[in-house]
This record gives sequence, structure tokens and C-alpha cells, in this order.
Amino acid sequence: MTWVTGADDSSYGVTNLPYGVFRRGGQEPRLGVRIGDFVLDLAGAEAAELVLAAGALCRPTLNEFMALGRPQWTAVRQRVTELLTDTAHRPAVEPLLVPLREVELLLPFEVADYVDFYSSEHHAANVGQIFRPGQPPLLPNWKHVPIGYHGRAGTVVVSGTPVVRPTGQRATPQGPTTGASVRLDIEAEVGFVVGVPSRLGDRVSVDDFADHVFGVVLVNDWSARDIQAWEYQPLGPFLGKSFATSVSAWVTPLDALAGAFVPAPDQDPPVQRYLHDTPHLGLDLALSIEWNGERVSEPPFATMYWTPAQQLAHLTVNGASLRTGDLYASGTVSGPDRSQVGSFLELTWGGAEPVKFADGETRTFLEDGDTVTITATAPGPGGTTIALGEVTGTILPAR
Amino acid sequence: MTWVTGADDSSYGVTNLPYGVFRRGGQEPRLGVRIGDFVLDLAGAEAAELVLAAGALCRPTLNEFMALGRPQWTAVRQRVTELLTDTAHRPAVEPLLVPLREVELLLPFEVADYVDFYSSEHHAANVGQIFRPGQPPLLPNWKHVPIGYHGRAGTVVVSGTPVVRPTGQRATPQGPTTGASVRLDIEAEVGFVVGVPSRLGDRVSVDDFADHVFGVVLVNDWSARDIQAWEYQPLGPFLGKSFATSVSAWVTPLDALAGAFVPAPDQDPPVQRYLHDTPHLGLDLALSIEWNGERVSEPPFATMYWTPAQQLAHLTVNGASLRTGDLYASGTVSGPDRSQVGSFLELTWGGAEPVKFADGETRTFLEDGDTVTITATAPGPGGTTIALGEVTGTILPAR
Repeated sequence: MTWVTGADDSSYGVTNLPYGVFRRGGQEPRLGVRIGDFVLDLAGAEAAELVLAAGALCRPTLNEFMALGRPQWTAVRQRVTELLTDTAHRPAVEPLLVPLREVELLLPFEVADYVDFYSSEHHAANVGQIFRPGQPPLLPNWKHVPIGYHGRAGTVVVSGTPVVRPTGQRATPQGPTTGASVRLDIEAEVGFVVGVPSRLGDRVSVDDFADHVFGVVLVNDWSARDIQAWEYQPLGPFLGKSFATSVSAWVTPLDALAGAFVPAPDQDPPVQRYLHDTPHLGLDLALSIEWNGERVSEPPFATMYWTPAQQLAHLTVNGASLRTGDLYASGTVSGPDRSQVGSFLELTWGGAEPVKFADGETRTFLEDGDTVTITATAPGPGGTTIALGEVTGTILPAR
Repeated sequence: MTWVTGADDSSYGVTNLPYGVFRRGGQEPRLGVRIGDFVLDLAGAEAAELVLAAGALCRPTLNEFMALGRPQWTAVRQRVTELLTDTAHRPAVEPLLVPLREVELLLPFEVADYVDFYSSEHHAANVGQIFRPGQPPLLPNWKHVPIGYHGRAGTVVVSGTPVVRPTGQRATPQGPTTGASVRLDIEAEVGFVVGVPSRLGDRVSVDDFADHVFGVVLVNDWSARDIQAWEYQPLGPFLGKSFATSVSAWVTPLDALAGAFVPAPDQDPPVQRYLHDTPHLGLDLALSIEWNGERVSEPPFATMYWTPAQQLAHLTVNGASLRTGDLYASGTVSGPDRSQVGSFLELTWGGAEPVKFADGETRTFLEDGDTVTITATAPGPGGTTIALGEVTGTILPAR
């Protein structure tokens, strides 16, 4: 229970406490923790010596704090919980609470490298059926290798940033042409944010996941399907993805998700030894996708075939080093049903089956002015539910 | 002509003047310009007000200087040339010259995003013939789209950094297995370093290449062919590349390469409008690859199908923003002859035709302890030849 008005009744109570970066008026960016409809000013709290983290809370991004490591993450979370629950602290702490409506939320961390995986079996199989009908839905490597690739870190933007419709080449029966994408799509994903780096040449074991990963963001990996289809052979997606990737403004710390780990789907055939995670755990996150305010899908993250610990071990098995701020996303989250898919490509089955909205409008892919909002909840301690913020974006016309 | 002893007779005279970052003893990293066998301490020069760049020369990497833009780049180059040629400056400048043998060279810039293109027609056709015998050597998109993908910025290392043999999955007739790569290869490339950023949503025209690109590095994009072959479908290369990418310690400014621009190969079929560069110019760089001290290939960069201006325009046609420190590499540089290829995959035709060295040793792919050094020269002003530094690395056993 917190003394902050209204917070216990929200999904941002003291069992949640996600981290972000906010700006008030023309001031400098500051770190904050969300509690109910307020942001606790962490820079102010550290300056007042209410919480101590070697000055890392007085920086403009989360990176320095994320680099400190799990013991410090846990200590700060415990202290913040104390400050927000013990009424003895209220006189000192209350002046540091800023109403959410008064702040602008910024990109919470500086992204080092951005990797995107492809870890939903249902998504991979749907895409296989749409693009390679009549062939096996999964490629031969899919159940052995957690397939992934590098995306563009410099175009990761915070939730709310408008997305300009990308221009690019696409194939037509008359040959390639250049213009605004006509198959603009979303990918609802969950991203993992690395705090503690590793040395070049070393591997990170599946067992060391929680030592390196600070927390979780929601991700919308906007995708121009027409550009992607023409460019991706043989080196993978490039401009079909690199124009924008949106992340939630709140980073939910792993400590808040302790109650959300659940057994992941069995893996058959057996995976390579470096991918043996015991226990083999995924996260029970319930995603929801709203298209122009109407819920169109509810992807269940617990159905993902590859776990975040396996992804991290795979990412580093070749000795690739981790940096603070590395972001790796799960890939599109799709469950077994059409009402659970994480992309409009799947929702409309390649554009063949339009979505019909309550007001009679229909859609296949995104139109200018459309807004997509992805949210998620997770089971918190003591039967509570915690929210993972939101990632939203509106499409602007091509320039 | 410079007053610096020996420099006029080297390929690092006053027509070259590449930028780098050096460390002497336990001191902090400093920016420098190479002249002959010396480094001019730029931080010292700016502190002494011998050259002015708003403090950007007193930073530990080139990024802040590169962000200033072409007028400042040209002004600093002109002033440094003056300092090194006018003997009136010799008393003030000579104490700022540090012998190269006394310094350690560091990564010259902080890499933002790393993109790797695939712009040699000969290389793409060779790879096609090796991996898809009997089929057309080029995929249908290759002459329309400057194919590229994002690599791992965090594992770009400076020349001289040892390369640990990567471990990973590869396919065998008995199924996948995990172990040290047995087909470790190089890719000799040329990289372009972005100085001036662009805004998200904007495109950079082919005509604006020289406003954004600061200079050129040599690149060795180390590649584990067995890991790559098993993982790359459908999202492209990932762990087969991400363990290390080496770059030269010296960034050659575009201003030094003014005499090296030459007409690039004709493009047929015609390319899309945003790729029309007039004039259509490549760079006449002569690369050389030494394997354990023996020259094995001399790739001619002037044969590249896609030009660096086209690559930049393509990279941003979808509105992707540029950041200072973005690095985009050309892709493997291969000429039409076997003696001009930029990878050992091509040199040994997929490992089928081993290379025989003078001492009788043979090689297909890299063995532990092997060293590969890539160098390049370009025509400088007045019939001079300028060198582009080197990128070298030695293979360490898998961990």
C-alpha cells in the first residue's frame, strides 16, 4: 500500500514502479519512477539523498543506472518502495511527485544495438503460409536457431512519436517502382533492455539472463511489407523496418515481473546445449492492440517458442559483446488464433481479409492518420495486475 | 612540401592527413592527424590555439569534430596543412609531433549504426555461383536495390584487435551442431563515416553525399561462413558476422580523396530516380590483402557497381535518420579476376581450391594464429599516392 493518492487502485501501484525519463516545461530530462498518475523525480530524490545510486539517478537517460547491476537495481527499488509506502517519508517525498499530465516522456535509454528476433512459432508459421503457400510453414533452421537480425538503433523512438509513411522501392508486374509504402504494418513485440555489458569474446549463459537484463519495454516494429518483400533477399529486412521502431516510455524492471515467469512451450526437437534454460521460462504478458481505438487483437506473450534467456545466450554465443542500452525484441507476438496475432499482415491474411470496424470502416494495412496503441499487463505480486505502459504512434503522410 | 622529416617521401604527406585517436602511455585518448611517421597532437594544437574547432579537437573521439560539417572540416584541414608546411610554424608545432611508434591507436569514432552493403557485382555473382550453382548468379532485385543490412555497431573494433574465433551453430548431415567456426573468412571492404546527421523522416539526396560523409576507413568484415549459411534464412546474416568487424585506425577525409573519384561502371537497367547520381562516381582505391604476410589479392574498388552516394541516398530514402558516427561499408570488394577478390570464400572457390603459400603451406579458410592485413592506396593531388592506413587482425582460438 502506498500513500500516493489513487495509486493502489491503478495498475501502477508499488508492485510495478517502472522507470522512465521525463521533461517538465523547458527543463532538462530527468529520471523518474511512475506511481499511479505521478512521476517520482528520481534526480530530485537522489539530490536530496533520499535514495543513493552513485549519482546515476541524476543523468538524462537510464543507461548509467542500468550499468550498475542487479544488486543496485534491487536496492534502489526497495528504497523507492519504502519512500512511497512509509508515511514518515511523505513530507520529504510528496514535493518530488510530478503529475503525469504535466510532463513529456522521452526515450528512456540510449539504444546501443537493436536486435529483433522472430520467436513466435505461430507468427513464423503464418508468415510462411502467406508468403510460401504449399510449402512447410517453418524453414528447417527455425526450431534450432533463435532467428534474429540487427535493426537500426538510431531510429528507435519513444511512444507517441508520429511515424512518417516510408518511401521506397517495391516490385510491380511492370518492374520496380519507387513511392510511398502501400502495405504499412505493425509488429507487436516485447523488448529486453540490457544493463550490464559483457566482454568481447565472452559468452553470456542462459543462467546469467537476470544479471544482464534490466527490464522490459513494449515495442512496435513498424514494417513496410511491400518494401521488405522486394529488398529482403538475400540479406534480410532493411529499409522495410529502419524508418521507425517505437518503444514504450516506461521500462518495467525484471523485479516487477518476478510473478510473471511461467513455463515456456516445450521445445521439440531438443535445442542445442547452450540454449538449455532450466527452468525454461517465458513471461505471462497479455498484450492488446488497438487500431484507431478499437481492440483488434490480444497476443499472448506466454506462447513464444524461444525465451528471452535463450535469445540472450544465442546473441552472445559467438562472443559478441553486450553494451548497456542494447535492446533485443522478441519478434512479433502471435498466438494460435486469428484474434491473437501481432501484425496486420496476419490479421488480414496478407490483405485478403479486411478488418471491419464498428463504424463500418475497413482496413487492410495502415492509412494516413491511423493510430495504433499496444498495451500489456502482467500478473504482479499478491494477485495484483501491473501494466507495462503503452506504445502508440500515428501515421503521417509520406514526405 | 612539409618540414616534417621523411613525410614527403611517405604516402602520408600533406596531401593525405588522415584523422585518428591515439593514446600515449597511460594518458587519455587524444585526436591526431598522421603526417609521415608522426601524429600531430590536435588536442595540443587546439589548446595552444594553433587550430580552432570550437573545442571539438579536444575530445576523445572524432564524433564532435565530424558533426561540425564540411566547411569546418575543410578549414581545419587547410590550417593543419599550413602548420605543417610553413616553417614559421615549426617551432610551435614540432613539440606536438608524437612518433607513431610511441602511441597506441584507438577506435577513431564512436560507431552509431553500422550498415553493410553488397555492392560489388563480381562478388555477388561469385557468391551466387558458389551457393546457387546452375541458377542466375544475381537475384532479381540486385541491379535495382543497393542491397544492405544492419550489422552490430558494438563489435566494430580498431585494426590490430585480435579476433576470437566465433562459436555457433552449423548444419551437418546429422543435423545442427555447435562449435567453433570451421569456415572463418574475411571481407575486404571500404567504409564511409557519417559526420553530419539528418532528421527522422527526411531523405538525403545523392547530391548531398559530401555534406554528410566525413571520410573513409578500411573495413574487414570477418565472416563465419558455416554459421552464416545455417542462420541467414529468412532474416539475413547475424552471428556469422556480429563477433567482430575491424576498421582502420585512420579515417581518410573525403578532401584527401578529391583526386580519386572516377566514373563508376555504367548501370543497366536504369536505376530508380532517387539513385541517379550525376556525375556517377566511384573511388579509385587499390586494395591489397596480405594473408600471413603474403599478398593474395588486389581488389579494385573502382569496379563497384553501386556508388557511396547511391548507398547513402538508398539508406535514407525511407526517412531513416543519420547520426554522427554512422558507418556504412561497401560490401566485399571483388574485381573480375580471381586475383582481385575480397574474400577467401571466392579466392578458394568455396574452399574447393586451396591457396598455396610460398613456404608450401596451404589454406582454405582462416586457421588460428593467421593474420590478415588489408591496405589501400589512392591517387592524391599532383601525381602523389596516398595510403589509407591498414586494417589488420590475428585469429585467436575459440574460447
